[in-house]
Amino acid sequence: MVLTFPDGSQREFKQGVTGFEVAQSISPRLAREALSVTLNGKIRDLSAPITESAHITVNKWDDEDGQQTFWHSSAHLLAEAVQELFPEVKFGIGPPISNGFYYDMDFGDYKVTEADLQKIESKMLELARTKSVFERIEISKSDALKLFSEKGDPYKLDLIEGLEDGQITLYKQGGFTDLCRGPHIPSTEPIKAIKLLHIAGAYWRGDVKSKQLTRIYGVTFPKKSMLDEYLIQLEEAKKRDHKKLGRELGIYLIDSMVGRGLPLWLPNGTLIRRTLEAFLREEQVRRGYKEVITPHIGNLELYKTSGHYPYYADSQFDPIQVEDEHYMLKPMNCPHHHRIYSSSLRSYRELPLRLAEFGTVYRYEQSGELNGLSRVRGFTQDDAHIYCTHEQLKDEIKNCIDLTRFVFNTFDMQVDIRLSFRDDKKDKYGGEAGFWSRAQAEINEVADELGLDYVIAPGEASFYGPKIDFIIKDALGRKWQVGTIQVDYVMPERFDLTYVGSDNQKHRPVIIHRAPFGSMERFTSILIEHFAGDFPLWLSPVQMMVIPVSDQFATTATEYELQLKEKGFRVETDHRNDKIGAKIRDAETRKIPYMLIVGEREVEQQSVSVRRHRIGDLGSLKFSEFIGKVSAEVNNRENPPKQK
Amino acid sequence: MVLTFPDGSQREFKQGVTGFEVAQSISPRLAREALSVTLNGKIRDLSAPITESAHITVNKWDDEDGQQTFWHSSAHLLAEAVQELFPEVKFGIGPPISNGFYYDMDFGDYKVTEADLQKIESKMLELARTKSVFERIEISKSDALKLFSEKGDPYKLDLIEGLEDGQITLYKQGGFTDLCRGPHIPSTEPIKAIKLLHIAGAYWRGDVKSKQLTRIYGVTFPKKSMLDEYLIQLEEAKKRDHKKLGRELGIYLIDSMVGRGLPLWLPNGTLIRRTLEAFLREEQVRRGYKEVITPHIGNLELYKTSGHYPYYADSQFDPIQVEDEHYMLKPMNCPHHHRIYSSSLRSYRELPLRLAEFGTVYRYEQSGELNGLSRVRGFTQDDAHIYCTHEQLKDEIKNCIDLTRFVFNTFDMQVDIRLSFRDDKKDKYGGEAGFWSRAQAEINEVADELGLDYVIAPGEASFYGPKIDFIIKDALGRKWQVGTIQVDYVMPERFDLTYVGSDNQKHRPVIIHRAPFGSMERFTSILIEHFAGDFPLWLSPVQMMVIPVSDQFATTATEYELQLKEKGFRVETDHRNDKIGAKIRDAETRKIPYMLIVGEREVEQQSVSVRRHRIGDLGSLKFSEFIGKVSAEVNNRENPPKQK
Repeated sequence: MVLTFPDGSQREFKQGVTGFEVAQSISPRLAREALSVTLNGKIRDLSAPITESAHITVNKWDDEDGQQTFWHSSAHLLAEAVQELFPEVKFGIGPPISNGFYYDMDFGDYKVTEADLQKIESKMLELARTKSVFERIEISKSDALKLFSEKGDPYKLDLIEGLEDGQITLYKQGGFTDLCRGPHIPSTEPIKAIKLLHIAGAYWRGDVKSKQLTRIYGVTFPKKSMLDEYLIQLEEAKKRDHKKLGRELGIYLIDSMVGRGLPLWLPNGTLIRRTLEAFLREEQVRRGYKEVITPHIGNLELYKTSGHYPYYADSQFDPIQVEDEHYMLKPMNCPHHHRIYSSSLRSYRELPLRLAEFGTVYRYEQSGELNGLSRVRGFTQDDAHIYCTHEQLKDEIKNCIDLTRFVFNTFDMQVDIRLSFRDDKKDKYGGEAGFWSRAQAEINEVADELGLDYVIAPGEASFYGPKIDFIIKDALGRKWQVGTIQVDYVMPERFDLTYVGSDNQKHRPVIIHRAPFGSMERFTSILIEHFAGDFPLWLSPVQMMVIPVSDQFATTATEYELQLKEKGFRVETDHRNDKIGAKIRDAETRKIPYMLIVGEREVEQQSVSVRRHRIGDLGSLKFSEFIGKVSAEVNNRENPPKQK
Repeated sequence: MVLTFPDGSQREFKQGVTGFEVAQSISPRLAREALSVTLNGKIRDLSAPITESAHITVNKWDDEDGQQTFWHSSAHLLAEAVQELFPEVKFGIGPPISNGFYYDMDFGDYKVTEADLQKIESKMLELARTKSVFERIEISKSDALKLFSEKGDPYKLDLIEGLEDGQITLYKQGGFTDLCRGPHIPSTEPIKAIKLLHIAGAYWRGDVKSKQLTRIYGVTFPKKSMLDEYLIQLEEAKKRDHKKLGRELGIYLIDSMVGRGLPLWLPNGTLIRRTLEAFLREEQVRRGYKEVITPHIGNLELYKTSGHYPYYADSQFDPIQVEDEHYMLKPMNCPHHHRIYSSSLRSYRELPLRLAEFGTVYRYEQSGELNGLSRVRGFTQDDAHIYCTHEQLKDEIKNCIDLTRFVFNTFDMQVDIRLSFRDDKKDKYGGEAGFWSRAQAEINEVADELGLDYVIAPGEASFYGPKIDFIIKDALGRKWQVGTIQVDYVMPERFDLTYVGSDNQKHRPVIIHRAPFGSMERFTSILIEHFAGDFPLWLSPVQMMVIPVSDQFATTATEYELQLKEKGFRVETDHRNDKIGAKIRDAETRKIPYMLIVGEREVEQQSVSVRRHRIGDLGSLKFSEFIGKVSAEVNNRENPPKQK
């Protein structure tokens, strides 16, 4: 039996070896740190015997799969602690999530408090220190039903009903036994730091007609210092929360009288959005895109042709009847652009044709899932469709990647790139396999030529073509999936798109869909959190506040303001009859990048005393020097200086 | 009995005097040219006795009321001619319209041809020359029913059914008698020039379930030269038709698969629209407006609060149910802006608050009424709402008028201004009468201070406040109602809008609604027709075409192109292997303002040979001189030179 390791090396093992033994054979340290193994993409207990050749990863804390095992076991630890403190509680389910774990529990009429969370936390730490082993137990369906009937756990019984006999396992640590598929870490020993984060309500099986259970969220770490760091980051994330800053900085507003999930962009937000649009538009013009504008509703027939209806009907608003037709809020811009393409006979000379639109689309999201600017019911895509020949595809993909990277580099955001390719399930994909192979090879070549750091994800392609996904990392290291570049072989067929080639014959173009920002709403929410509201000068709604030291310098202050405005800067003057300190504090609160203090010396010397938001005094500058400095900062789209 | 003339002069007449006698008493010439009289706003026959004191106008051809009488009588003449040529025809109705008249007739199974129109025209001229008098006959309902039963005119019988006995009149000229309320011109004599324009189908009483009749449109004049001029203008209007040019110049597209009345803006149209938006945005920023963006749908509750629903439900799309709420395509931006206003406590220091949005709204229009870009189901208003105190109202109105005039002056469009005020019907209007009087007085003052040429239209105010309407005259002298400025006292109440005054008390602001362009779609259709597609340089989608004389000058041509692009111009180079003449013809067809021909001499001298669209050769210019010239033309937003 041969096991293949992540670095590609292979070793023979005898059948039935456990993951733990494999880890030991590599190093005692690895065995000590190992949490689980991943075999051919599936996570397994370290103690499980391995029976056939496979790709293997021994998961430590640093591996995502290791963390998932760690947090799954922590959920059981939470349940054990609750069982000790509240013996009457009935248990639902307790899975790991991307940042920790939760457990849904029925506390009867009791309302869990913050104080309870602390008690449970202490109990969990106490239990973890007992180093209880996680024991896997196979059990027949009838025995399982008997066990949980005796225990009085109706939710577990409900779950067991849906399971097949022979497939049922329990996991037991200390005095707690749970119905569980596993896997788990060897024992509770590595769980050294615990934080229960918050309490929420959750319906059993997500069904509003079922009972509402109490969901407790938590996170655990193998080291106390990791928890401390996590809590600091959590605090920082709260400060940066785009819903909090969005309100404080006058960026957007959600008003249930206007509609849930339908943001109103306030003046400051509109300015940021328009500036982002102008930034991208300028780049797109330079790269030969042509802008179009299409309506926000469309005939249902259009979406039937594209296949969006009825396939995606669940995420769309209901159609509206108009005379003998049905119209729908536009869920996608694509079909509209395809109709523009096919509105005239296209020659190969016109290709690539790059149609761009800041197109607002509407999708139905459940009100419970809406979240600020990041999950909404109407959003504007920085959409474009590139119609090209197969020969042009490679260059066009290269251009798209280049544009996307340019956009994110502008904001000092790190980008992870995933090439999502097809797997060998043939009926999963549209278009000719030959085109796919060629496109995937070309995408690979482009990625190499551009020196990209990428991963390939087989099976992650959409059904209509391979794609490239961009995942950005913000200032807090959090990852966000943003824009994609998608090759499409299917829509040209569905919309019968053609061009006349140099051979005078009709051919099918291929389409690239792309949107670097993805959605203006979501990207703005990311920007707010990335910059903590301290936007780069070129994006700041108000860039400078002129602050006269007293009334007698008001004239000069206003002159400065007007001169700056004439240069295209967004400036205000604080003419209030207030102390300098108070005016500076107000400008700092509003996160205005520059404060220009104008007093006697400044008037005499035609200078300004410059203060930079968060940084402090930059000293005195000739007014003309200051204009030069900030002009360069805007033109270079400089990011704000790091905080001291 | 006293009659008051348009110039304000008054004269006594004895009761029962006719309009003709009044005209005679002024001058024999007036009596000769008189067509009808208008008494207290109502048009009457010249021969009708006048029985009480009134305001009187004796209508000649130059008076709109005179033209209406002339064309009404011409419709009867058309019917008389048809009756002579097609004795079996049944008659519907035949009113005057703004540019002529029509008559709806039932030709049975016969399909009227263009050749028929010519025959009818000749017959009309022949009958007109008989100088038949229009005779008014009062008739009882039973006699009228008898008459038209014998005549066999089912449509007239249908009409008579709906009339009250004692109110029924006929008009008879020559051998034709029509059921008609009148008035008419004295005889057919003044009808000297006749043109039947086109044939259309029209359902009886506009009801699709009724029979479809044949509608013949025509126009008549008292002089042959007037008809000639009219036909030339009609020809010119056809050439300028925005639907024709919109397609030829790649401005927009209506595609029934996307939706009727839902324009897709093509790249050239999008460029024009974005340029217009940027032009207005720049002005608005200068004038202290703040831009916002609001969703295209809204909760039905919002429109119930504003009163748009159910009051205007007929012109709105049906609501869409979403969970337990109803959403509607936004018919107006106002309520959205009002909610932004009320989203925070406003101080008098924040006023005037000017919220602007290029806001797309959706209105239900019957498919039969849709027309290119000028009558659509979705359009974008250049909307703004100004929230101010009563003390600020006058200045704000002045600013709005100033901005609106600035906009139209930019396009060399003449503007007529109408001040639409309230009349004394008290229950017709919302808000306090005291505010109205003050606002109307202030609007009047502003109009005088700005030296405007305006008319006052009492009774034309909206129910929520007085307004100012702008009517522009295009290059063909055609009038288009565009933007309005409206004062609103009602919505601040309905949305409970307040601000805290310097007295620390809450007060109601007043709102101004304004939109200079009105709708980007409609205004673009007017612009296309006004300029006949020959847009000013700053609005032209492609501003220049570089044309190398042969391949060997391609490098210099491309260099010129790149240099011009760097300066922000929209330039293409025609690299096709074609004759200069053909390339020039193509550029002329595309209405590209400048053609830059580059040959040997130009390369040597770093010059260009410049050709202006429609004007011709402008001679040779140093390339740098040319850049200076066109930069100035764009910056000054110069209108294109008049055609030779």
